[in-house]
Amino acid sequence: MSVLLTGIGELVTNDPEAPGTPAADVDARLGARSAAALLVDDGRVAWVGPASAAPAADELHDVGGRAVVPGFVDSHSHLVFAGDRAREFEARMAGESYAAGGIRTTVAATRAASDDELAAGLERLASEMLRQGTTTVEVKSGYGLTVADEARSLRLARRITDETTFLGAHVVPPEFADDPDGYVDLVTGPMLAAAAPHARWIDVFCERGAFDADQARTVLAAGAAAGLRGRLHANQLGPGPGVRLAAELGLAAVDHCTYLDDADVHALRESGTVATLLPGVEFSTRQPYPDARRLLDAGVTVALASDCNPGSCFTSSLPFCLALAVREMGLTPAEALWAATAGGAAALDRHDVGVLAPGRRADLVVLDAPSHRHLAYRPGVPLVAATWQRGRRVA
Amino acid sequence: MSVLLTGIGELVTNDPEAPGTPAADVDARLGARSAAALLVDDGRVAWVGPASAAPAADELHDVGGRAVVPGFVDSHSHLVFAGDRAREFEARMAGESYAAGGIRTTVAATRAASDDELAAGLERLASEMLRQGTTTVEVKSGYGLTVADEARSLRLARRITDETTFLGAHVVPPEFADDPDGYVDLVTGPMLAAAAPHARWIDVFCERGAFDADQARTVLAAGAAAGLRGRLHANQLGPGPGVRLAAELGLAAVDHCTYLDDADVHALRESGTVATLLPGVEFSTRQPYPDARRLLDAGVTVALASDCNPGSCFTSSLPFCLALAVREMGLTPAEALWAATAGGAAALDRHDVGVLAPGRRADLVVLDAPSHRHLAYRPGVPLVAATWQRGRRVA
Repeated sequence: MSVLLTGIGELVTNDPEAPGTPAADVDARLGARSAAALLVDDGRVAWVGPASAAPAADELHDVGGRAVVPGFVDSHSHLVFAGDRAREFEARMAGESYAAGGIRTTVAATRAASDDELAAGLERLASEMLRQGTTTVEVKSGYGLTVADEARSLRLARRITDETTFLGAHVVPPEFADDPDGYVDLVTGPMLAAAAPHARWIDVFCERGAFDADQARTVLAAGAAAGLRGRLHANQLGPGPGVRLAAELGLAAVDHCTYLDDADVHALRESGTVATLLPGVEFSTRQPYPDARRLLDAGVTVALASDCNPGSCFTSSLPFCLALAVREMGLTPAEALWAATAGGAAALDRHDVGVLAPGRRADLVVLDAPSHRHLAYRPGVPLVAATWQRGRRVA
Repeated sequence: MSVLLTGIGELVTNDPEAPGTPAADVDARLGARSAAALLVDDGRVAWVGPASAAPAADELHDVGGRAVVPGFVDSHSHLVFAGDRAREFEARMAGESYAAGGIRTTVAATRAASDDELAAGLERLASEMLRQGTTTVEVKSGYGLTVADEARSLRLARRITDETTFLGAHVVPPEFADDPDGYVDLVTGPMLAAAAPHARWIDVFCERGAFDADQARTVLAAGAAAGLRGRLHANQLGPGPGVRLAAELGLAAVDHCTYLDDADVHALRESGTVATLLPGVEFSTRQPYPDARRLLDAGVTVALASDCNPGSCFTSSLPFCLALAVREMGLTPAEALWAATAGGAAALDRHDVGVLAPGRRADLVVLDAPSHRHLAYRPGVPLVAATWQRGRRVA
């Protein structure tokens, strides 16, 4: 059944070639159109154009002057875990610094949890994300760190998304504290074999205190041999080799990118690897924000994602991350929206989402606002009036 | 009909004397209790105590382990206006600085709007606030700046709250640009006479570019003679005499307090005037945040409010302001919650809200979280599962 969305105050398509009347004073890259309509059929966008030229449809749906934007694509999250680190957060806000070792707290709770407990938490967060306009989400393992726990984390994650990432190399678990290379052998051997059937991607936390560049290279090579594409956590807590490694390997994305030097920026520009920025982390750890303008001005593709996880950043809200990107990293509202939609799709090498054009998935958000600017202009306000996924309203 | 709330994961009462088991490791001032229940009857809290000792009730309502906190008291907002300043916001984020003169843009749109348009905007924002847990809101006039437009702004505001504030002295309107003293005569004369029947408070924007201390004193004195209690906007954009004036006059609250010297802090401590901080403004104007710790450490009572308005801060979300207060101003999650509830009540000199104790209004928020800490730990996430006002669920 086809549905025609009408009464759209501003339609952001991320398609600069979209037909119709460009919305006044909006960055052309957003392909924002006024007086536009959008036809959904069989889960896909079937037509976009001026409302006055709209085709017939089985059903009309008037959004009452609200803005419509592509569904958010959250390319970095850690939703499979148990336990709560609210007190650690409170202590950090009182002056303690963030350390990657806190991950081990969640590992212990996750291992101790039943499948049902993990699935319930995951589904609660996935549903919370849908209500906030996220229509595509990448979910990592990384709190199991045993063969069985990593495999079940990914198996559970697959219930809610195809974008699953094996992150056995998140930290070295306590039982391998004296034998990190033994842990890398486990990750690249039996753990990878158990995880690969449930994952599309493989990831490594390449950071002092986690894994070095040689270990990361080993893990990514093993993943590639098992059919998994690579991505990296890198340069979050300090300078390091991870960003250049990601560029050298031509990975789809490298995430965090808080501490970059000129060579890192140059390498990203040359490789086309997406720099995924996670400003919710800097908000929740009181770290300095990445220099997003330097990346954008150098021509690097930037994505925004939540990094939703119980330790360094427990927000699931891409609208919040977008408002932070504007306030703290100097993105324009248009750049931030693009980064949280088309940018996220690029970071996942997805060509069916992030853009509202014929043939793409009909994943979209109706905002309780006349313009996309309100996502930054109205920080913290739940502005998602409705979320549509594959052509159906789901929140 | 009485309703007993049960299954409360953590009950924050703001009553250090509340009976029951103190929740572990929570600031005693919050009066947080575990294994507690709360009885609502006739719009009031009828009983608080251990769930095991709860009295009989007509109805049981199990909140499923969620935290319950007092409804937020937003003691500073400007909800009666027309128009939109999203493009001004965008320009400011691109580098233009905030100036009070932008208020005049909203004044022109507000004067041109019909009563129905103003009422619709006001009701939309009031409803948005309820969904975010605000159960008491102060609303100012100040975008009319004519006798008729100020009176109608307050008349409309009274439809949604008793806490209405006459802010004719917001800025000098363009038609009085050459005669600011003539405008003060209008404010203290016919405009006050028309506004007073609809207002509880009178307020002045005491700042360079708006009104000086002598003018503020004149306006507040006239208001007092007409039965209105005073409050002030002061020391937002730079140092000034407003905070000391508020303390000298023993006002209930002085709002913004971004630029304070030692004498200002001393005066606030001595007078007991509440310092209302509005961190959403600093977020949305990229100004430095007030030094909240200095105020708290000096023993000044601090409130948090939204300042929801179309120019300097268009958030209506107290949870967002609370998260900013923790991240940016060093409040603990407990201090921030107290400031956004009991602190707001103190700023409005209200003794019936902000605390969940027998006899107080049954205004409360059920959080989609086990603890109040999650309001800061999960920034941007809409955590308000339900809002109860006067003993009834309203959102």
